[in-house]
Amino acid sequence: MTVYVRGVGLEKIGDRWELSVAKLAAQAGMKAIEDANIDPNKIDYLVVSNMTAPFLNNYNQLATAVADMLGLKAKIITNESACGSGGMAFNTGYKLVRSGAENVLVIGVEKLSDHVTKDVTTAMMMAEDRLYTFPSGSSFVALNALALDYYLKRFKVPHEDIMLLPVLDHENAVNSPHAQFRYKISVEKVKQSPLVADPLHLLECSGTGDGAAAVLLSSEAGDVKVLSSETATDRFRLNEREDPLTFKSTVIAARKAYEKANVSPVDIDVLEVHDAFSITGVIALEDLGFAKKGEGAKLLKDGQLSLNGKIPTNTFGGLKARGHPVGATGVYQIVEIALQLRGDAGKNQVDGAGIGLAHNIGAVATTTAVTILSKA
Amino acid sequence: MTVYVRGVGLEKIGDRWELSVAKLAAQAGMKAIEDANIDPNKIDYLVVSNMTAPFLNNYNQLATAVADMLGLKAKIITNESACGSGGMAFNTGYKLVRSGAENVLVIGVEKLSDHVTKDVTTAMMMAEDRLYTFPSGSSFVALNALALDYYLKRFKVPHEDIMLLPVLDHENAVNSPHAQFRYKISVEKVKQSPLVADPLHLLECSGTGDGAAAVLLSSEAGDVKVLSSETATDRFRLNEREDPLTFKSTVIAARKAYEKANVSPVDIDVLEVHDAFSITGVIALEDLGFAKKGEGAKLLKDGQLSLNGKIPTNTFGGLKARGHPVGATGVYQIVEIALQLRGDAGKNQVDGAGIGLAHNIGAVATTTAVTILSKA
Repeated sequence: MTVYVRGVGLEKIGDRWELSVAKLAAQAGMKAIEDANIDPNKIDYLVVSNMTAPFLNNYNQLATAVADMLGLKAKIITNESACGSGGMAFNTGYKLVRSGAENVLVIGVEKLSDHVTKDVTTAMMMAEDRLYTFPSGSSFVALNALALDYYLKRFKVPHEDIMLLPVLDHENAVNSPHAQFRYKISVEKVKQSPLVADPLHLLECSGTGDGAAAVLLSSEAGDVKVLSSETATDRFRLNEREDPLTFKSTVIAARKAYEKANVSPVDIDVLEVHDAFSITGVIALEDLGFAKKGEGAKLLKDGQLSLNGKIPTNTFGGLKARGHPVGATGVYQIVEIALQLRGDAGKNQVDGAGIGLAHNIGAVATTTAVTILSKA
Repeated sequence: MTVYVRGVGLEKIGDRWELSVAKLAAQAGMKAIEDANIDPNKIDYLVVSNMTAPFLNNYNQLATAVADMLGLKAKIITNESACGSGGMAFNTGYKLVRSGAENVLVIGVEKLSDHVTKDVTTAMMMAEDRLYTFPSGSSFVALNALALDYYLKRFKVPHEDIMLLPVLDHENAVNSPHAQFRYKISVEKVKQSPLVADPLHLLECSGTGDGAAAVLLSSEAGDVKVLSSETATDRFRLNEREDPLTFKSTVIAARKAYEKANVSPVDIDVLEVHDAFSITGVIALEDLGFAKKGEGAKLLKDGQLSLNGKIPTNTFGGLKARGHPVGATGVYQIVEIALQLRGDAGKNQVDGAGIGLAHNIGAVATTTAVTILSKA
């Protein structure tokens, strides 16, 4: 059975002091319902993706609160996989339609701005292994800095090449209305920005922001269809993986997603890659099959990922510049791909975009969700 | 496609100081895998149901931690609907098999005993409406006490009749190895127990305990099959419902579940009803179609719910005496129904049990999951 994206909704990412996490989600959901132009009573399920609401916002039934605000009679399902929640939630929605539901609303939401950094960092690390990684005091910044350090030494890649990914993100965000950081940066600026965890600079790291995005999935035809939605998992801890510089969950999810969609990397016209940190995105480019191991940054150097390149990537600013409201990010990516396929991407429209891929990970790729969409 | 219960696993409910929430879940999961006698590599999905881990245990990726402990390569999905998480998680697992997965492991887990009552109560109420109910200071005990008060006045039922439900639960728990409170009580004892929230006595309320239960769902034939699994939702706040003494979500989910299973209440041989409080169970008995409104307690008075009655109910002790480890309860219920249908219920075995129903609610029936199982 074919599953279609019939409607999408977005909220601007940033400090949304004026809204509760539930209200923020409801607003994005309402936009998707309006965009799809369907009767809210015909929504069978609501799937809400969120990471930190129980800890930071003290919501233990967020989806129910959102459903009530929207006046939905939908059966409710919520989903959680840290920064990979959005892609996972989309996968659940997709499976619900495949197993007989008519319309499923998927909302990703995160509200971080009401809290001090210490609490936000704690909430993030609660997604890591509680027995070893968490008590050791390491943060996601630290873990990715270790990966970057090892990557630079092993593949002898200049750090400046890796920095081209945040530079690309910021360039694309200038024309992205919902993006958090709408200004250009340069490699020089990245190098001058403070070291957060050596060798990772501040401008290589996604920021803290609130956001919500929504997708209305349907068995009825829409402008965009889902070619495949696949998820996979890896060992929890980086140190227990065969190779810390290969995201096995991404390799597996991507392979299955290409297979089910009957496409290969060369067919992808537009790409959203999960670059919570510069290095994360570069590793993912390789594991998604767009470059050999150690050669991900070459794509950036050759301009292949730019808007007029072969594989326009993170066309609305990616995690670095569009923003990374963790549990919502995966849904933002899918909405952005859908907008490109519909021809609704504004100034950053990729000409003739027919097939797009969204790549979303939880923790350091403990989980990956890969979604491939096409024009219907 | 028929979905089967191929394996089940249970942990004893109580103060499990020696285990983390993840380890507790993993132990129950391992038992279900062993009971099903299948290769763990053939498990496609892991669904974990839990309510309070992010707030009380600081786990933000509980399912991932559990999968890693079990060495599973399963794709992961987690699910949340407060005290109704278990039934919701089962519903997700059921849909995953229906949409093509071969084996799905569903684990419900809750770990409350490491925390002071104040924090546990806060975590519980985080499942209620954050804008009105939570700040008003009301607790689930208070909300159910209000319902009881109104019920007694409206239907002129003697309070003693309602108390027969916890008495039945405790009677059945004596022979229930995994139950938390394995001793008999009497109506007199209930009346003598302290008032928690007038008119609700302590012995009418489920206690605080840790627990984990697991079900292995499969497309391959097993001893027990799923006739239907349906969920529904109601308005979040009690005061916004047409009738606070009718659980609309239960009425709707039950009606659909009977229809899909092609059975009616008279066909049910064994029943698990969500009696977090005595009154909750009595209202549910009515909304499930076993008695007219205001006449639920008659079933108890007539002995119809006893082991040798027409509809043996809560045969392992129900929420009051088996225990109510919130996010795990719905899975316990399904395991218990499966044990009855397999003839594995020990001293409390119901002769000739062919069809069973499990009723699980979230908050004050904001959500309901109804599952109907039969002998394969």
